[in-house]
Amino acid sequence: MKIAILGSTGSIGTSTLEVIEKYPERYEVVGLAAGKNAALLASQIKKFKPRLVCLAEEDAAMSLRSLVAGSETTEIVSGTDGMNMVATLSDADIVVAAISGSAGLLSTVSAVRAGKTVALANKEALAMAGELITEEARQKNVKIVPIDSEHSAIFQLLDGRNKSDLRNIILTASGGPFLNYTKEELEMVTPEDALKHPRWKMGNKVTIDSATLMNKGLEIIEAHWLFGLPSENIKVVIHPQCIIHSMVEFIDGTVFAQLSQPDMKGPIAYALSCPERLNDTVEPLNFAKIGKLTFSDSDEERFPAIRLAYKALEAGGLMPSVMNAANEVAVQKFHERVIRFPSIPAVTEKVMERFQNDRSVNLENILWADRWARDESEKVIEEFI
Amino acid sequence: MKIAILGSTGSIGTSTLEVIEKYPERYEVVGLAAGKNAALLASQIKKFKPRLVCLAEEDAAMSLRSLVAGSETTEIVSGTDGMNMVATLSDADIVVAAISGSAGLLSTVSAVRAGKTVALANKEALAMAGELITEEARQKNVKIVPIDSEHSAIFQLLDGRNKSDLRNIILTASGGPFLNYTKEELEMVTPEDALKHPRWKMGNKVTIDSATLMNKGLEIIEAHWLFGLPSENIKVVIHPQCIIHSMVEFIDGTVFAQLSQPDMKGPIAYALSCPERLNDTVEPLNFAKIGKLTFSDSDEERFPAIRLAYKALEAGGLMPSVMNAANEVAVQKFHERVIRFPSIPAVTEKVMERFQNDRSVNLENILWADRWARDESEKVIEEFI
Repeated sequence: MKIAILGSTGSIGTSTLEVIEKYPERYEVVGLAAGKNAALLASQIKKFKPRLVCLAEEDAAMSLRSLVAGSETTEIVSGTDGMNMVATLSDADIVVAAISGSAGLLSTVSAVRAGKTVALANKEALAMAGELITEEARQKNVKIVPIDSEHSAIFQLLDGRNKSDLRNIILTASGGPFLNYTKEELEMVTPEDALKHPRWKMGNKVTIDSATLMNKGLEIIEAHWLFGLPSENIKVVIHPQCIIHSMVEFIDGTVFAQLSQPDMKGPIAYALSCPERLNDTVEPLNFAKIGKLTFSDSDEERFPAIRLAYKALEAGGLMPSVMNAANEVAVQKFHERVIRFPSIPAVTEKVMERFQNDRSVNLENILWADRWARDESEKVIEEFI
Repeated sequence: MKIAILGSTGSIGTSTLEVIEKYPERYEVVGLAAGKNAALLASQIKKFKPRLVCLAEEDAAMSLRSLVAGSETTEIVSGTDGMNMVATLSDADIVVAAISGSAGLLSTVSAVRAGKTVALANKEALAMAGELITEEARQKNVKIVPIDSEHSAIFQLLDGRNKSDLRNIILTASGGPFLNYTKEELEMVTPEDALKHPRWKMGNKVTIDSATLMNKGLEIIEAHWLFGLPSENIKVVIHPQCIIHSMVEFIDGTVFAQLSQPDMKGPIAYALSCPERLNDTVEPLNFAKIGKLTFSDSDEERFPAIRLAYKALEAGGLMPSVMNAANEVAVQKFHERVIRFPSIPAVTEKVMERFQNDRSVNLENILWADRWARDESEKVIEEFI
């Protein structure tokens, strides 16, 4: 099986390469793409010898060329066109779409259009362009396999099941590091606090999204497009141990849950091998050692992001793109200490309120809405501070 | 779908009739069989109008005839032959085998031999004659669908899955009402204490077996025959809330769990309708309300029954029948206050130690071993007291 990875130097990308390294008889890396981390990409080239690599930034690509000078087997390209080349590599069977944020959208769409099986870790792509991507995938008979642990859980549980028996999807949420903080305490948290996720080792953007619960909000929209359920049948429950990765509830009242150690190598390996399973991709669970699994409802007052996501999903059209872009800007501004933690959803909501959601959904308008929301977020933030 | 129920006046039997009553457009009762409860069977006849009913005891059948005098549509028979008539009714599609203890063995075997789909609640039948029943079912291409909540959970989770991906079955156990009792406290418990199961409403025999954990022991053997796993791949974990009914662990380290309210109508309805699911057979779960699910290892010193079951399964041959019969006698003697609670597994173990396990496995020898173990149990109990 030949694999191309978009976002190979990020958290999902490096975990994907760990999985591939563990099963060398099954997988071969043919393409890698990243943003600007030339040093790490150079060592990945040395180890996996892909045919084509891309760095988004031309300067970084230049450094990469000098770092791997002498290697004749790997072509190095750059920019958006380069990304698309990796996303559409003729001999790739599976494209792992693991560039987080809206930056990953275009290459994900390219991979779908090229008819590749897409192992999708980029939840923003589906949040922004779920309708477009799933419709193109349907037309091209392209398989989209989720890598997000929650959606992988649901995908695994539903595989081979009668979808007409499905009543609800129950997404579990860790609740993040501030689950039990008061409103006052939330005002004071720093980006460093937010980056200490209690269970998952992940990239910065998704870790802060986990703390605001916007990560779960995006996953609600993602689940809608992946599994075709209306918003009222997609539920969220807080489960701090992150052992149950999500659940499905059937019409008879029965629930199936998927459990494992919180280790992204599990869903990544399943996305590459499904419907088969590989030996020992994650450490087995020891239930007596785990002791207990707890559950609670999410508190919308302290964590409004889930409410915003339902609102965006119900509004439809370009609203999810607007929500996503505003959140990305707000997260970045929180990271830069320009705004406080509770302002992330507040900014996002304000931008959503100001949006005229009256254009049709196509890639051009999605990108327009993304830009509009980014500009509007900056304005809203200036008003806030 | 036409249903015959063996054990219609017991806990599983009456729950099965509740399920059937709820979905009258799908199910029709053609046969009912019970032990001696003429009054309840009479009211079941009135409501469900089966073609044939049987009471094991001839005297009880006589009372039943006078109770339903005037009704011309239901034939009333009695005894072992009568049981077999209900178990093999020509127009029954599904036979629900819900006579607990070894009493249910012969009628279960008859139903399998008649080529009926068997919805099996009688775990003792599989514990005693698992090899014989599953082999006959294979030859006759007969479907055995478990009703035990644990095995139903596993059956549901594995349905449509690749069995080669399965590593372990994890049976959950409530731990019974004495989970946290000391050895000294266990000496003092009464049958009334044992009959207060914290979660499940069940018959007397299975409730006391739940308290000793022999219920789980029998289920280990049942799981072996139903799912074809060796004993080392069948695990037990204590889970007092009885929300997770069992789990399966795949080779990659992923676990699937089946959850629902502890209500036998769930597994019963699934056994009748599978692979379809019926609407609202059990109340949906509310995870925030549940709050937590806990797990611990079982303590073999205070609850040796699970160890005995592994021993019987590994010994094979007629040893599981001997264990089952000795346990039935010991439970009965505890019920009659002849022996104390910890003597139930002690008697069972002693009888197992004395057994010469050298005869081949066929129905005749199974019944011989059952009788031998009952006699031997009486002797062991006389020595104990």
